[in-house]
Amino acid sequence: MSGQIEDILQMVRDGSLSVEEAQNKLRVLPFQDIGFAKVDLHRKLRKGVAEVIYGASKTPEQIRSIVKTMVDNGEKTILVTRLKPEAAQLLQEGNFEFYYEPLSKMGIVGKKPEPSGLGYVLVATAGTSDLYVAEEAALTAEALGNKVLRLYDVGVSGLQRTLAHLDEIVGASVIIVIAGMEGALASVIGGLASCPVIAVPTSVGYGASFHGLSALLSMLNSCASGMSVVNIDNGFGAGYMAHMINHMEAKR
Amino acid sequence: MSGQIEDILQMVRDGSLSVEEAQNKLRVLPFQDIGFAKVDLHRKLRKGVAEVIYGASKTPEQIRSIVKTMVDNGEKTILVTRLKPEAAQLLQEGNFEFYYEPLSKMGIVGKKPEPSGLGYVLVATAGTSDLYVAEEAALTAEALGNKVLRLYDVGVSGLQRTLAHLDEIVGASVIIVIAGMEGALASVIGGLASCPVIAVPTSVGYGASFHGLSALLSMLNSCASGMSVVNIDNGFGAGYMAHMINHMEAKR
Amino acid sequence: MSGQIEDILQMVRDGSLSVEEAQNKLRVLPFQDIGFAKVDLHRKLRKGVAEVIYGASKTPEQIRSIVKTMVDNGEKTILVTRLKPEAAQLLQEGNFEFYYEPLSKMGIVGKKPEPSGLGYVLVATAGTSDLYVAEEAALTAEALGNKVLRLYDVGVSGLQRTLAHLDEIVGASVIIVIAGMEGALASVIGGLASCPVIAVPTSVGYGASFHGLSALLSMLNSCASGMSVVNIDNGFGAGYMAHMINHMEAKR
Amino acid sequence: MSGQIEDILQMVRDGSLSVEEAQNKLRVLPFQDIGFAKVDLHRKLRKGVAEVIYGASKTPEQIRSIVKTMVDNGEKTILVTRLKPEAAQLLQEGNFEFYYEPLSKMGIVGKKPEPSGLGYVLVATAGTSDLYVAEEAALTAEALGNKVLRLYDVGVSGLQRTLAHLDEIVGASVIIVIAGMEGALASVIGGLASCPVIAVPTSVGYGASFHGLSALLSMLNSCASGMSVVNIDNGFGAGYMAHMINHMEAKR
Amino acid sequence: MSGQIEDILQMVRDGSLSVEEAQNKLRVLPFQDIGFAKVDLHRKLRKGVAEVIYGASKTPEQIRSIVKTMVDNGEKTILVTRLKPEAAQLLQEGNFEFYYEPLSKMGIVGKKPEPSGLGYVLVATAGTSDLYVAEEAALTAEALGNKVLRLYDVGVSGLQRTLAHLDEIVGASVIIVIAGMEGALASVIGGLASCPVIAVPTSVGYGASFHGLSALLSMLNSCASGMSVVNIDNGFGAGYMAHMINHMEAKR
Amino acid sequence: MSGQIEDILQMVRDGSLSVEEAQNKLRVLPFQDIGFAKVDLHRKLRKGVAEVIYGASKTPEQIRSIVKTMVDNGEKTILVTRLKPEAAQLLQEGNFEFYYEPLSKMGIVGKKPEPSGLGYVLVATAGTSDLYVAEEAALTAEALGNKVLRLYDVGVSGLQRTLAHLDEIVGASVIIVIAGMEGALASVIGGLASCPVIAVPTSVGYGASFHGLSALLSMLNSCASGMSVVNIDNGFGAGYMAHMINHMEAKR
Amino acid sequence: MSGQIEDILQMVRDGSLSVEEAQNKLRVLPFQDIGFAKVDLHRKLRKGVAEVIYGASKTPEQIRSIVKTMVDNGEKTILVTRLKPEAAQLLQEGNFEFYYEPLSKMGIVGKKPEPSGLGYVLVATAGTSDLYVAEEAALTAEALGNKVLRLYDVGVSGLQRTLAHLDEIVGASVIIVIAGMEGALASVIGGLASCPVIAVPTSVGYGASFHGLSALLSMLNSCASGMSVVNIDNGFGAGYMAHMINHMEAKR
Amino acid sequence: MSGQIEDILQMVRDGSLSVEEAQNKLRVLPFQDIGFAKVDLHRKLRKGVAEVIYGASKTPEQIRSIVKTMVDNGEKTILVTRLKPEAAQLLQEGNFEFYYEPLSKMGIVGKKPEPSGLGYVLVATAGTSDLYVAEEAALTAEALGNKVLRLYDVGVSGLQRTLAHLDEIVGASVIIVIAGMEGALASVIGGLASCPVIAVPTSVGYGASFHGLSALLSMLNSCASGMSVVNIDNGFGAGYMAHMINHMEAKR
Repeated sequence: MSGQIEDILQMVRDGSLSVEEAQNKLRVLPFQDIGFAKVDLHRKLRKGVAEVIYGASKTPEQIRSIVKTMVDNGEKTILVTRLKPEAAQLLQEGNFEFYYEPLSKMGIVGKKPEPSGLGYVLVATAGTSDLYVAEEAALTAEALGNKVLRLYDVGVSGLQRTLAHLDEIVGASVIIVIAGMEGALASVIGGLASCPVIAVPTSVGYGASFHGLSALLSMLNSCASGMSVVNIDNGFGAGYMAHMINHMEAKR
Repeated sequence: MSGQIEDILQMVRDGSLSVEEAQNKLRVLPFQDIGFAKVDLHRKLRKGVAEVIYGASKTPEQIRSIVKTMVDNGEKTILVTRLKPEAAQLLQEGNFEFYYEPLSKMGIVGKKPEPSGLGYVLVATAGTSDLYVAEEAALTAEALGNKVLRLYDVGVSGLQRTLAHLDEIVGASVIIVIAGMEGALASVIGGLASCPVIAVPTSVGYGASFHGLSALLSMLNSCASGMSVVNIDNGFGAGYMAHMINHMEAKR
Repeated sequence: MSGQIEDILQMVRDGSLSVEEAQNKLRVLPFQDIGFAKVDLHRKLRKGVAEVIYGASKTPEQIRSIVKTMVDNGEKTILVTRLKPEAAQLLQEGNFEFYYEPLSKMGIVGKKPEPSGLGYVLVATAGTSDLYVAEEAALTAEALGNKVLRLYDVGVSGLQRTLAHLDEIVGASVIIVIAGMEGALASVIGGLASCPVIAVPTSVGYGASFHGLSALLSMLNSCASGMSVVNIDNGFGAGYMAHMINHMEAKR
Repeated sequence: MSGQIEDILQMVRDGSLSVEEAQNKLRVLPFQDIGFAKVDLHRKLRKGVAEVIYGASKTPEQIRSIVKTMVDNGEKTILVTRLKPEAAQLLQEGNFEFYYEPLSKMGIVGKKPEPSGLGYVLVATAGTSDLYVAEEAALTAEALGNKVLRLYDVGVSGLQRTLAHLDEIVGASVIIVIAGMEGALASVIGGLASCPVIAVPTSVGYGASFHGLSALLSMLNSCASGMSVVNIDNGFGAGYMAHMINHMEAKR
Repeated sequence: MSGQIEDILQMVRDGSLSVEEAQNKLRVLPFQDIGFAKVDLHRKLRKGVAEVIYGASKTPEQIRSIVKTMVDNGEKTILVTRLKPEAAQLLQEGNFEFYYEPLSKMGIVGKKPEPSGLGYVLVATAGTSDLYVAEEAALTAEALGNKVLRLYDVGVSGLQRTLAHLDEIVGASVIIVIAGMEGALASVIGGLASCPVIAVPTSVGYGASFHGLSALLSMLNSCASGMSVVNIDNGFGAGYMAHMINHMEAKR
Repeated sequence: MSGQIEDILQMVRDGSLSVEEAQNKLRVLPFQDIGFAKVDLHRKLRKGVAEVIYGASKTPEQIRSIVKTMVDNGEKTILVTRLKPEAAQLLQEGNFEFYYEPLSKMGIVGKKPEPSGLGYVLVATAGTSDLYVAEEAALTAEALGNKVLRLYDVGVSGLQRTLAHLDEIVGASVIIVIAGMEGALASVIGGLASCPVIAVPTSVGYGASFHGLSALLSMLNSCASGMSVVNIDNGFGAGYMAHMINHMEAKR
Repeated sequence: MSGQIEDILQMVRDGSLSVEEAQNKLRVLPFQDIGFAKVDLHRKLRKGVAEVIYGASKTPEQIRSIVKTMVDNGEKTILVTRLKPEAAQLLQEGNFEFYYEPLSKMGIVGKKPEPSGLGYVLVATAGTSDLYVAEEAALTAEALGNKVLRLYDVGVSGLQRTLAHLDEIVGASVIIVIAGMEGALASVIGGLASCPVIAVPTSVGYGASFHGLSALLSMLNSCASGMSVVNIDNGFGAGYMAHMINHMEAKR
Repeated sequence: MSGQIEDILQMVRDGSLSVEEAQNKLRVLPFQDIGFAKVDLHRKLRKGVAEVIYGASKTPEQIRSIVKTMVDNGEKTILVTRLKPEAAQLLQEGNFEFYYEPLSKMGIVGKKPEPSGLGYVLVATAGTSDLYVAEEAALTAEALGNKVLRLYDVGVSGLQRTLAHLDEIVGASVIIVIAGMEGALASVIGGLASCPVIAVPTSVGYGASFHGLSALLSMLNSCASGMSVVNIDNGFGAGYMAHMINHMEAKR
């Protein structure tokens, strides 16, 4: 609770501040001090879960400095997305546990938390060329405390490869489907699954794939119920959404 | 369990069918009889929850006939989407409870089920012109057994109208944000909420809204975490996805 | 000033409310009652200036009812945009002054205010087919209290028609340029003028004009300094922006 | 063989035409009389096969007159595409056998030929809303002398419905897959089939289907080998291509 | 035939497995073991024909290892598409016959099979700048066992160059037309030919060719009957489709 | 010559105006009175040639009134483009010669001038569905004093139909090629012709023709030299451009 | 004032030039000497304000030479936009005051003028990745004589960060909002502000941001009144427009 | 004249070839030998005029070899477009006159012909950044025998710069207008000129210029009569078209 409001009210009570002066003071208080505190409480990830740093537009030095502050403040897991190798190099040299996955450019400082949640998150891709997005999604979900199952290379043109994994599909709590080119895998898995499916188009492909536009439109138009779509190549967004769904709880 | 397989196996057991003949029989069985049964079991909506009919490409007579069969088979709630007024007229005359919402062209046969799920689904729109999509989403969620809270007309250009409802936003289990034109409401609510947000772009607008493209791109690019997007005007898809998230359970 | 806050503070002062209870009450007050009051004060148009109703998505009855309330509350000028003829008909029958311009579908209830502001707003079009947008812009600016000069049909293909009006162009306080097809008029006038220019692309045209896209891109790419662009066919937005610029005052 | 060339050569032979004059005459002969005759012979459809009239840009009277001439010249089967009901009405009244399919707007004058070719053409659709294109393809193939198998409503979201027809898919000579929205059915069937697949995107859908663009891009990007694509809604083109493939013969 | 099913049935017969247990076992068998075996038999290319490896997203080492395994397993011809020079270098050093065409980045391990099929495949291009795609198509068709005729540089702006090859065009079994920029060559050859034509747009060009979009749209809209289109730059897809058409056989 | 300038100069000469006052007066004179007179002289069409009225955005009454004034002023030929039937009806009733072509919506008041110019303008179309644009081009050229040759229905898919008219193509002074769908006819004729070619894409077509975009891109990318393009459906613009080229003269 | 006109008038006055000859001479004078002088006077920036050089398409040497001439002519402030580092290096070595901001590639020769105008220009960005555009806008406004307030990193996903600065937003004279991705910040600030807002989309982002298209469309469709948009990444244009609005004065 | 036909006719005349055999021989003669000779005669550029080589897709060695052959065959002027510096280097070393313009990448072998034609070709650009296209157009026109006048940097934002050159504009035989960004210069000059205008959009610009699309659409939609457009950056096409128009002659 904001001490400022309390102070103002105390001064009103003891008469050192008139009602009118108090009104004026209240009106110019920064909003976060009044009503947003609870927002922050809600937006914070559950205890023990990773903090996230978006590494793309920060210098290696900036990233190291942010990470250091967080570690010093007791953060147990810090996820750094779009982390360039040279910045990873710098973090490598810090005196904390650090893991770097070069394909997805994901870095994890500290330990991944023990998996929690309602079930496992399934991450499925059509081919090996989409792995850079798939790993961004999978590592995000893991760093936020989810058990992740990877089904890579289950493309539609060999439907039996998909169907051979029907049990994993049917058993998942949330599914992230990642596909470039035509994105049909999302429809196929969406048709088989009975849980929420998050589709991630990738910019992989050539010609009329138009840098992911083809897969994006295909996924938006999928007839499968219970599917929604995130931005092209946005593995992190899919992983985060999957985490939220996999950690749903009854609201009081 | 498929009786056909059982019969074949019985015949193998009692010798009336050779192993080789049984193999041949098994191989040509329709797939749904072998492995897909469990899929169907999983795909079925939970007991007491509505069946869904997509009304857009069916004649009034076809719809009435499907509805009648379902009612005769004991379905308690049937949701008909994109139901044209003339088809609604016909259903009106049937001997079952029927409700029609003309703006969203949604029809509900029978009673809406008692709300269940983890919490309530919040449906928010920027203005009254998006109501036709909002009601499609809201009625879908209600027909599938969710408590729905409607926040209509909370546009970004009057931010205080949005913030006045902060409690409803923060307290929701899932949020569906519906907006045409620039779609900024999704980002604003996505930034305030701590639950999964499903964004629905609408084709409402003029000029450079390009029939929903502007809102679609805006929502896909939103920086808010925990948001995903469905097709333009796809209120049903959002309502269905919200229902699935609001009914998440621990997987065994 | 919100009476609610005053009441709370009074109760704190006379001891009928504890400081802690007051904090809780303040925290759940709708935001507009606390901090947004000043926003509203600023957002309100200057005294005597028109209120605006967006008529497109409202029924004739809704519009009449809103207008009636406003008139009863003493509003002197009310601007109704995108007002369909049948709604205009209904307003015509009210017991207040009413003017309807069918081309731009603009209605003005009450009297236009006396022109104020720094100078005049010039509204220029390339041809007669853009008039529906031009009049929306011109009437908006007039209803908000601006002197408006109309230069219609000064297309680029007859450059002398533009140049014959050089004095009006150079003398304007703000210029609104409205053009479909290629939108070159905006660049030409932007090059001649020394005041802010607001460009409005229109959806008028055929073939590769793509419903205003050609003019929009052309205007965004104009090399003329001091020009900015509003949405295709958005005459109201241009008129409003012009009004704000023409009424600039020194901030304390 | 063109009589004109023979005449010229005869005149050269009997001296009534000089070599130089003959050269000049040959040079200005319409091309079709010299080298293109054989082209025409090749382009003609095999004997007994239907002639095709594109009905879209012709008046009912023009169509009747063309049909009448053809019938008088002994054509046994005439296919009329994009035939409006009023033109069909007129043909109905002619003294020849006539069949009209209103959904696909296809008319067939005379008898469909006995099916020939290497096997059957399979026409598969994802849903009933694509039938207008499917029937255009199916009737085209039938009118040109192919056995056609129709698999309508085998959408991807219910994969078992597709797989239940695996035998028909695997047994086909050519497959035409017709789908709007996301077009994933083409990829799925393309992955199962071992014959050439022709994909037809349809303009059916809403929102980000963009009048068939989504399905078109999806099909072009399909990873399935042995698939090619025709224009949006071009059922005739697919039927014609399928006919050509189903009637392949060894070239001498 | 899958041994697993046979085993289960044997155990049912000899009573060591109950009917119910057998049902459960059958239901969880990977699908390929039940119904998909015949699919695989059909999908396999005819005996002696090349296997295909998509080289684009694989490391040189991965490619060499896959090739080695295939060679060891007795594959006679292996086609590697989109093979980067450094990977080709590595294959060069293997102890098997290897051919690399750097323009199209195609590698062929082993011997091209003797040409079979109904006739020859004609590959035609408008200019030398499309050769990289043309060779991908031509080498694919050759590696799969087709006789290929190359007509390079038969552009539309010099129509006589096209017509001079009328005999080759008319005599072909299948034609692949490859063109960037405006793609008119496809229409011209499509109008002359009496066999199926597969059009491949290329990304060659500048300005409003928009990386192949212009040629793609042009080809999709071609009025020539018997033409279909593959993805921009997809020479392999065209070559494969041509191979399938050139090897059509009567289905039993 | 502007009387105003003469007056000022006279007053300078007789001393009733100072040099400085004259300078100020000259500076504010409308531009057309000073330097643009010669522009107008140049822009006027050659004597006896038609005036042009763009009929699309004018009421029938406005058009009749403009025509009447022109006729009274002695105009011999007046071309009215995009003239709606009801406006044509009104002109029909005037007491002057009037011709209306309903397909192209072109009206000609008075007599077409005798053809002049360097040669004839050839107007070629691929099919009968483009006639509405072709006639706009042809009648424009005729009304401006050009001999016009019409080659309708010379589509690329029947190349011999084009080649049969090689003499007319080679003999033309300017060629206007009109085509929708893929626009290949422009390339083919551009390759055969030795004169300037003006290509007009039309919005005729369906599917991926995207309202003329396909033909537009195709024509812009044509490899044929000596070709340029006007807006989709802009028959008038092509006819006017052709007229200018066909009436080229040596500049002094 | 043009000496040429004066000379002509003097010659008319002293009789050495006839009125007719003077008319002819006047008619061929370059326009700028007659009527455009006043245009130039108006277009010039207010005294003491910076001159602007567009550095993108000029060599370092060209820029240095232009700067030198301007400095020699007494210009006090010269703004150079899109100045490459190597050109900045060269200017660094000149004997005049010089400041270079590498992120925005802006150079300022001489001293920034003392801020003037009606109030301050607020420059707000959603994140640090848009700074290169923000600084272009801010430095432009400063170099033209405006007080600038920078609000960087006030993104929508953390709405409280925006609202904490409500006073700066409400107190601004003009606001420039800079945002990539979804551009929602413009709508949010536009809804809070009561002054003109200029929105600048940036090309920052990935996937479906399509190089700024998403933010551009979003901003054009914003429902906030009093907002207009400049080209993607056009910080200079926004700064210049803001300067003009902040320096509005009553016209005579 | 083709010797082959003469030989055949001679053999017919002297009886060594039957009429039927002659017919067969004639039918298979390559077309260029029969009817296309005259096409070639017409397509050839007028005597003494430059041959053109498209340098973009050829190696330096290929270009040198083609040039050498042409020079040996007596060609006086050879134009090489899109000639890379390394290829220019190689030509530099040949024993013939050679000129290379690096900005436009144009090379001219031999002497430019004396200017001929009806008048001069005016090449106008909006700014210096379009020079690479402008010089391609200008040098093409010069190499083909046209007098060229260059008006560079006459942008619309400083309209007086354009108008100062009114005489050159009005006096031109053909005008080529080259502009990127918004392309308004084409409309302005098109409105002033009385001769054919060829507009060339360039890919110069940033943001919403979309690599020339904005200028292309703008030019296609220009209201100025007598203007047509070539592909983005296609200076050669414009120069060639201008040459053809400037060399128009009366057809017999």
